[in-house]
Amino acid sequence: MRQAGRSLPEYRNLRTASESILDVLRRPEVAAEITLQPVRRYGVDAAILYSDIVAPLAAIGFGVEIHAGIGPVIAEPFARAADLDRIRPLEPDVDSPWVAETVHILTSELSVPLIGFGGAPFTLASYLVEGGPSRTYARTKALMWAEPQLWGSLLERLADLTAASLRAQVSAGASAVQLFDSWVGALSPDDYRRFVLPATRRVFSSIDDLGVPRIHFGVTTGELLDQMAAAGAEVIGVDWRVPLDAAVARIAAAGGAAGGTSTVVQGNLDPALCLAPWPAVAAGARAVLEAGKAARAHVFNLGHGVLPETDPSVLQRLVALVHGEEVDGVLAADPGADLTAGPRR
Amino acid sequence: MRQAGRSLPEYRNLRTASESILDVLRRPEVAAEITLQPVRRYGVDAAILYSDIVAPLAAIGFGVEIHAGIGPVIAEPFARAADLDRIRPLEPDVDSPWVAETVHILTSELSVPLIGFGGAPFTLASYLVEGGPSRTYARTKALMWAEPQLWGSLLERLADLTAASLRAQVSAGASAVQLFDSWVGALSPDDYRRFVLPATRRVFSSIDDLGVPRIHFGVTTGELLDQMAAAGAEVIGVDWRVPLDAAVARIAAAGGAAGGTSTVVQGNLDPALCLAPWPAVAAGARAVLEAGKAARAHVFNLGHGVLPETDPSVLQRLVALVHGEEVDGVLAADPGADLTAGPRR
Repeated sequence: MRQAGRSLPEYRNLRTASESILDVLRRPEVAAEITLQPVRRYGVDAAILYSDIVAPLAAIGFGVEIHAGIGPVIAEPFARAADLDRIRPLEPDVDSPWVAETVHILTSELSVPLIGFGGAPFTLASYLVEGGPSRTYARTKALMWAEPQLWGSLLERLADLTAASLRAQVSAGASAVQLFDSWVGALSPDDYRRFVLPATRRVFSSIDDLGVPRIHFGVTTGELLDQMAAAGAEVIGVDWRVPLDAAVARIAAAGGAAGGTSTVVQGNLDPALCLAPWPAVAAGARAVLEAGKAARAHVFNLGHGVLPETDPSVLQRLVALVHGEEVDGVLAADPGADLTAGPRR
Repeated sequence: MRQAGRSLPEYRNLRTASESILDVLRRPEVAAEITLQPVRRYGVDAAILYSDIVAPLAAIGFGVEIHAGIGPVIAEPFARAADLDRIRPLEPDVDSPWVAETVHILTSELSVPLIGFGGAPFTLASYLVEGGPSRTYARTKALMWAEPQLWGSLLERLADLTAASLRAQVSAGASAVQLFDSWVGALSPDDYRRFVLPATRRVFSSIDDLGVPRIHFGVTTGELLDQMAAAGAEVIGVDWRVPLDAAVARIAAAGGAAGGTSTVVQGNLDPALCLAPWPAVAAGARAVLEAGKAARAHVFNLGHGVLPETDPSVLQRLVALVHGEEVDGVLAADPGADLTAGPRR
């Protein structure tokens, strides 16, 4: 559950308002602790490295800051060919040695696998071009259509940046990777095919030799799932808008044309459902588990990041439910029961 | 093309920064002029009434303002059963007589049909519950799951409010209506079925006797199109994420189960594409026209509102292209040519 930390008091205690996540990432002990917190609290089956998708861009000195309540902010957005030189190759050992140090700490502490974390080329490009978060991605798309060659070069550099970052995480000990193309669902299938798929394939093929499972995720990607499945990942993350059985069917139907074979899915409980009364959460989780049976394998997860206002005890019960523990028996009777000491940890 | 006015200098000249759209709507001459501007400039085949989906809520005194750059803001959001009384029935003649006056002016001025404008229950409820725009609709969904009965009553009242507003617009002379459920794509298909479809059906069945074509639109609704098609509208608006032929196939495939028979679609050029160089716009428009052939009938449109930064001359050429005028011949040679005097007006 990405961003699970945001709901945890122990996370908020560690973070100060004035400190950027990019600064926190440079302190391996703290970054490792934040990665561990949700694992410790919830007993989930894997950890995901605490990071931010723009971290590699910050590491090569592109000039990106993260402002609280806004997100990444780029003072001088990407606008022309000359800006390509600002995206130099990442040398993980030199540019961001703290990442490997964090992974080292984690692999020695964790009893579950660690998932590495990377931003996909389109979503990274959207921040670079817009200068920050966007609702329409209008500038990004305009650049893509107006200057397809420049766009292609930009995405190629970003693909290499992310591949280098993921490679370093795996070399340091991560057992899997997840590539977040959070905002690519803003594109039509045709535009995805022409302007994004080649770069996404480039990321995955660059790390093919590592032999670790690769997860690929974005939001509002219902019409892109077949292409995403054909891009190289073993696992396709699905947001809550698409029932998992429909996602599996759509990927399978396109299998021949798109070359997609991945029918392992990850997802997809609506994160907002975790704000509802427990019976609604439980019913939703059971429906997700049921729909997930259509897949060759199913990694239960939320359909997007944890909402900050989520009550940690709900996530705790959710994990227990997915693990098949006696949720309704044990926890309904004792909402304060400490499931972190449960059988799966 | 909804919100086409935002791109027009003549619109910006009419609007002052200090004046809310809700105030403008009370001045029929001005509201009619704004409705007419894009028709005059672009030569489109229909006008859509200048309005805002929260206008009926303002008319009954719910306490809603529209803040520039933000959108609707509600000082006292909907939170509990007692708030239901704040949504009293709309009496159009008393509460918002200016709407009928605006429609009267328009029907005497226009040589193309006028489309009435209404907000769908879910999207209206999201503003009422969140107190303004939202990225996650977390409060709205939490209320929906936590208090399904209260939610049902809320949506029923909002359905009646919108139906009354649409009925008044048609009585005054509108030839069709469009129901905007802009944000309902935030829901999963199961939640749509349980928590939204009944209220949407209620809106459409309430105005069934009027005998006018009904259009139903939302964003990121790829997984909801079959249910939306079964809710009663003759025309289903589709955003640019779903190719029109895929939308038609999806609606048809579900036809038996969901009872959907509507395969008339509206859409769906990516509004951001209008910021691209003309050849890209033209190629995109031709692809939309081609995909639209899968439908029984196709109303060409953008897949969402016009972006404010759009160059009006691009929309002009786009309309000409759709009308089959000699775009590349005439306009490529003379980008300043005044197509508003073209054969279709």
